[in-house]
This record gives sequence, C-alpha cells and structure tokens, in this order.
Amino acid sequence: MKKVNIAEKLSLFKEYWRPRIVGELNDQYVKVAKVKGEFIRHKHDKEDELFLILKGSLEIKLRKQNVILNEGEFFIVPRGVEHKTVAKEETHILLFEPKTTLITGSTTSEVI
Amino acid sequence: MKKVNIAEKLSLFKEYWRPRIVGELNDQYVKVAKVKGEFIRHKHDKEDELFLILKGSLEIKLRKQNVILNEGEFFIVPRGVEHKTVAKEETHILLFEPKTTLITGSTTSEVI
Repeated sequence: MKKVNIAEKLSLFKEYWRPRIVGELNDQYVKVAKVKGEFIRHKHDKEDELFLILKGSLEIKLRKQNVILNEGEFFIVPRGVEHKTVAKEETHILLFEPKTTLITGSTTSEVI
Repeated sequence: MKKVNIAEKLSLFKEYWRPRIVGELNDQYVKVAKVKGEFIRHKHDKEDELFLILKGSLEIKLRKQNVILNEGEFFIVPRGVEHKTVAKEETHILLFEPKTTLITGSTTSEVI
C-alpha cells in the first residue's frame, strides 16, 4: 500500500500512446499516458473507458460527435463506441478502464 | 455523452464529506468531494476505494500506516482496510469506486 505521485510516474517514460499501469482496484486499472499526434480509430466491445486530462488538450473524435478535452476535464467513451484520439501538442492523460481492456484490441500495458 | 469539467462540478456544492457522482463506467462511479476536518473511521468489505487529490492535502490514517496525499497524488484503500480521513484545510478529491460502495455503510451519493 503506497501512494502514487502521478507526475513522478509520468517522468519515468517518454513514449507516446503507450499507457502505463499505475494502480489497480476492483478489477480496473488506473493508467497514465503521454500522447501527441493521432491514434487509430478503434473501439472496445465490452469496456467503457475514461480519459482525464492532466496536462494539455485531447480531441476525441466519435462517429457523430467530436469532444475537445482540456486540463481538468474527462470524458467516458462507452463500450462499443468507435473513437479516435488526437492531440496537437504533448498531452498527459489518466485512464480508468477494466483490466481486460486492450489498447487497440491486442496490446497490453506495462506496470510502472 | 458529455464531457465533465471537474472544477465546474465542484462549484455546484459546498458541503464537506458529501461526495457527488460525476461519472459512471463499468459499474464504477467517479465522484468528487470537498472535505475538511475528520471523517469517521470505517471500511468497505468488498470494495477498493481510490482517493485522488485535486486541491489541498488529505491524510489517510490506516491501522498500521498513515499516508499524506498532496495534489496530484492518489492512494487506493484496499477492501476490508479500516481508514480515517483527515484534512486540515478544505481539500478537493476525486473518488473512484464500485457503484455498490456506501459512504460509511449506509449513505448513498447524489448525481450532479
């Protein structure tokens, strides 16, 4: 049982679009990620996914709606909903999602 | 599907120790709360509980350990672990926990 300092965890890596696991509870993971540029459109069939902006700005492009998130804002992408995420500048995000969630259907995350 | 601005949600209420529900995903709630002073020692038998500090500082007193959390830090209290939370000044927190979690065993939270 140890507290987690989010900034410290973010200082441990530089790669974009590679969420790291920083906490686990109730079969869910807390992850942090650095993102910049565009990520491929994808969906998670059985998992809702929360994006919370720690620094910067993230656009989430859905089929019928685009959402622009700034620092201190979050958005929940419901299961089954296709989304494409875009960040013009380096942006830091926190993710909440079930342990079963794969990044794009095949990739797992590393614990830091 | 609407984004949530955490500061805006926090501006909607003033009461301490009354978490409000601001998001729901995967049978979990995202809540925000304003706290100041001491809350009674309690535990949740089946739910882990995450405390993330948005502003201020929170001490979590466990049986064998005290944890002081500052802005940008979080701690997960595992299920079954007694905890008492103390904030010297007004502190704003984000909580992540299963929908089944009651605040102290009997109280439910309001959606805002």
